[in-house]
Amino acid sequence: MHQLTFSPMPNAPLYRQLYEMLLGEIRRAGLAPGERLPSRRALAAHLGLSINTVDSAYQMLVAEGYVQAVPKSGYYVCPQGVSGLVPPPENPQQAENGPLRPRWQYDFAGGGIDASLFPLRTWERISRDVMRTGAPLLNQGEVQGDECLRRAVARYLHEYRGARAQPSQVIIGAGSETLLGMAARLLDGGKAAVEDPGYAKTTGVLRNAGLSPCPVSVDKYGICVDELERSGCCAACVTPSHQFPTGVTMPAPRRAELLQWARAGARTVIEDDYDSEFRFDGRPIPALQGLDGGDRVIYLSTFSRSLAPAIRVAYMVLPERLLPRWQALYGEYASTVSRFEQHTLSRFMEEGHFARHINRIRSIYRSRRDTLVYALTQALGKQAQPLCVHTGLHMPVRIDNGMTESELVASAAAQGVRVRALGAYRRTEKAGPPTVVLSYGGLTADDIEPACALLARAWKG
Amino acid sequence: MHQLTFSPMPNAPLYRQLYEMLLGEIRRAGLAPGERLPSRRALAAHLGLSINTVDSAYQMLVAEGYVQAVPKSGYYVCPQGVSGLVPPPENPQQAENGPLRPRWQYDFAGGGIDASLFPLRTWERISRDVMRTGAPLLNQGEVQGDECLRRAVARYLHEYRGARAQPSQVIIGAGSETLLGMAARLLDGGKAAVEDPGYAKTTGVLRNAGLSPCPVSVDKYGICVDELERSGCCAACVTPSHQFPTGVTMPAPRRAELLQWARAGARTVIEDDYDSEFRFDGRPIPALQGLDGGDRVIYLSTFSRSLAPAIRVAYMVLPERLLPRWQALYGEYASTVSRFEQHTLSRFMEEGHFARHINRIRSIYRSRRDTLVYALTQALGKQAQPLCVHTGLHMPVRIDNGMTESELVASAAAQGVRVRALGAYRRTEKAGPPTVVLSYGGLTADDIEPACALLARAWKG
Repeated sequence: MHQLTFSPMPNAPLYRQLYEMLLGEIRRAGLAPGERLPSRRALAAHLGLSINTVDSAYQMLVAEGYVQAVPKSGYYVCPQGVSGLVPPPENPQQAENGPLRPRWQYDFAGGGIDASLFPLRTWERISRDVMRTGAPLLNQGEVQGDECLRRAVARYLHEYRGARAQPSQVIIGAGSETLLGMAARLLDGGKAAVEDPGYAKTTGVLRNAGLSPCPVSVDKYGICVDELERSGCCAACVTPSHQFPTGVTMPAPRRAELLQWARAGARTVIEDDYDSEFRFDGRPIPALQGLDGGDRVIYLSTFSRSLAPAIRVAYMVLPERLLPRWQALYGEYASTVSRFEQHTLSRFMEEGHFARHINRIRSIYRSRRDTLVYALTQALGKQAQPLCVHTGLHMPVRIDNGMTESELVASAAAQGVRVRALGAYRRTEKAGPPTVVLSYGGLTADDIEPACALLARAWKG
Repeated sequence: MHQLTFSPMPNAPLYRQLYEMLLGEIRRAGLAPGERLPSRRALAAHLGLSINTVDSAYQMLVAEGYVQAVPKSGYYVCPQGVSGLVPPPENPQQAENGPLRPRWQYDFAGGGIDASLFPLRTWERISRDVMRTGAPLLNQGEVQGDECLRRAVARYLHEYRGARAQPSQVIIGAGSETLLGMAARLLDGGKAAVEDPGYAKTTGVLRNAGLSPCPVSVDKYGICVDELERSGCCAACVTPSHQFPTGVTMPAPRRAELLQWARAGARTVIEDDYDSEFRFDGRPIPALQGLDGGDRVIYLSTFSRSLAPAIRVAYMVLPERLLPRWQALYGEYASTVSRFEQHTLSRFMEEGHFARHINRIRSIYRSRRDTLVYALTQALGKQAQPLCVHTGLHMPVRIDNGMTESELVASAAAQGVRVRALGAYRRTEKAGPPTVVLSYGGLTADDIEPACALLARAWKG
C-alpha cells in the first residue's frame, strides 16, 4: 500500500480521481492480478479520505470488472485481457460467491442502461426541495403510495400509454417483483401462464407467490392464445408492447383474442409494460389495459429503465374489482417506497421533467439502435439479421453462420464480448434458428462499432 | 376561493405558511365544516405557488384531521370539536374511503414518532453528497442490499444489540413486511406461531406468505413455550426485547426455553426487534439471536422507529443455513431499497450520526415516558397502573375504574383522545383486566399532561 499515493485535483469528484489512480495502478500492473487491495478503512486512513469515497471508487472498479469483492476477505484485482473468459454471473450477489469475474470489453447481456443520461442535477434539486418539507413527509404515508405520485402516474398513463387509471387504482411499489408478487396473490392460486421464451424472473416471482407457472409459446404475434386456452391457466403474464426477449409487438387481433380469453373465463391478464417508453418507429402502441373494459387487466410498469435501475419505483394499476381484495391482503402494509423518493418523482413528473427526459433518451437510444443495426450489417453482412428493432433496449439477432447458439455465445466471450442466447430464455426444449439477444441499453454510442467488430471476428470463423 | 389571500414571509417554508393560513380560515370558519377546498391545481394558480407546496400544506391538514380527502372529489373541511366522534380508520387509504375523519386532540393510537427529532439537515447533506456519486449508484446494486450498508448494519448489531452477523447474512429490504414475507417463504410452510396478543400485521404477512398463523398466549415472561410446544408450529414470530403490545421483556430462562424448543425440533424463531433501541432503564437486553448458536433465529428489525416511518429501510439477519434457499428464491430479485438511500444510511451510520441520534432520542423519549407515568398517576391516582414502562414507545396501562375496555376507549374518544384497548390486539377471546395501550411516540412533551387530564375527565366518571 505504501506505494499508493494520491494528489487530488480541485475540480473533479474525489472518488473518481481515486478510481482513476487505482485503475492506472491496475493497468500498468502496479496492482497485479490476484493482488488484494487495501481494505477501504485502511486506504481511507492512508490517503486521508472518507471510507465512502474509497467505497465508491472500489465500487466502480467492481462494476467494471477490474476488481472483485470476495466476502469476508476483501477486494482482489481481476486478471485482465480476454483469454480464458468465464461468463460472469447474473448478479453482483452471485459475483461475490462465484469465480473471479472477468472484465468484459463489451457487455450485451447486462440489461443495464446508460446511467450518464439520468438528469441527476434536476433530480437532486427536487429531492433537496422535497426534503425541506420535513416532518410531514417523515411519518407513514399512504398504503398504496402517496396520492400525489399516484395522480402523476395515472395522468402519465392516460396521456402516454392510453391506459385508464384513477389514482385510487394505482399501487406504488419498490420494483416490479414486489408488485407482481402482490398481484399474483390477488389471483385464486392455480396455474398462471408465462411467455416462452420470457423472463425467468417472472416465473420465479409467480412461484414464490404460490402459483404454478406454465410456459406458453410465443409466436410472431406474441403469446399463443389457442395454446393458452388449452393450458387451463387462470391468468397470463404478458409483455404485449415489446415481448421479452423476442421483441414482438402484439398486433391488435391477437390483443383482442387475448382479452376475449380473459373475459370468457373471468381470467386475469397481467400486462408488464416494462420498456414501452422506447418505441422508436411508428406510432406508440397503446397499452393492452386501455383496450380492456378495465376489469380483466392488471397493468404493471417500472421506472427502472425510464429513470434508473437503482431508483426502486414501479407501479401497477388494479381493476376496480381487485381493489377490495388488495386492501384485505395488504391494507395493513406500509408502502415500500420512501416518501422522499415518491414526492421527488411526483414533482419530477408534474413539472414535465419525466416526459422531457423520456423524449430525450428515446432519441438517443434510437440512434444507438440505428448504429447497432448498421454496424452489425457492416460487420457481418447477411449472416446477421436483426429482428424486431422498433422498440426497446434489446434486440434479437439471428446469426446464420452455421454455429449453434452456445457456440455463438462462447466465441463472442472469447473476444471479450458478452451476449446471451435466445434459448437461455426458453422454459421448454423447443429450438429455433440460432439467435442471440443484444441488450444495448448499457453501451455508449462509441462502444457499439468496436463491439460489433469483435463479434464479426468471433462469428465470421 | 376569492377570499383566500396569502402574503408569505421570507424566512419560513411556503407550505407551512400556507398550512397556517388555511388552518386559520378553518378555525374561524372562513372555511366551514363540510366545505370543499379549492383543488390543489386551482389554489396553486390562484396564489402563484407550486402544486407541490399546496400539496404539502393540504397533507398536513389531512394528517392532523382538519381536512379529509375524498377520492375523485377533493378535499373537505372536517367538522371540528369533539362531539359525535367516530374512531378514525387505521390508515390514510381507508381514511379516504371511510367516514369524515374527526380531529383527535390527542392520539395515543397513531403509533407514529415525533418526526421533528429526525436529524434532517445531516441526512440531507449526506444524501446530497451521495447523489454526487452519480452513475455508479444509478445502476442495479446488490440483491441483498449494497455491501456498505450490510456492513454498517452488521457492525451496529454487534456493537449495540449483541447479535452476530456477517454482512453476507444481512438482507436489506423496504420495510419489515417485505422481509418478514421473504423470511416466511424460507420456512417449509405449515403453522407458524404468532404472539397473542400481538401485531395483527404479523398474522397477515404470514398468511400472505402461505403459512397458517397460530396464536399462542403471552404471559408475563413473553410467549408461552409449553403452549408453543403443543401447537405443533414449525416457527414462531416473537418480540422478545419488548413484546407488542404487553411490553413484556422476555427473561433469560424463557429465552433459553424458546431456543431449546427451536433446536429440539429444528424449528425457526423469527425475532422482531422492532423498537429495542428504546430501552430506558437498566442494561440493554441483547437480542435473542446472539444467544442462539446462530442457526435457529432469523433476526428482523427496522429503521422506521429509530429514524422515520417514511424511510423504508428494514433489515434481517439469516442463519447461514438459510442463505442458499434465500438465494434460490430471491437471487433474481432486485433489492427493494433505492441505492441513494442505502448509501446515505450507511454513511449516516458509519459516521456515527445514527448512534448519536439514537442516544439523543432515547433520552428525549425517556423523559416523555416519565412525564406520561407521572401525569397518569397525578390525574388518575390508583385507578391507572402503567405496566412494563422500561422500553419502547408504547405503554400498556391497566385502568381500574369499573369500565370495560370498550367503555374506556369510547369515553376517551368522547374527550377527543384516541386510545386502543389491549383486547384489540388479541386473536382469541381471552380477556384480562381492562387495559389500554398508550403509544406516545407521536406526542410532544407538552401534549402529554393535557392529554392525561382529558383521560381523567373521561375515566373518573
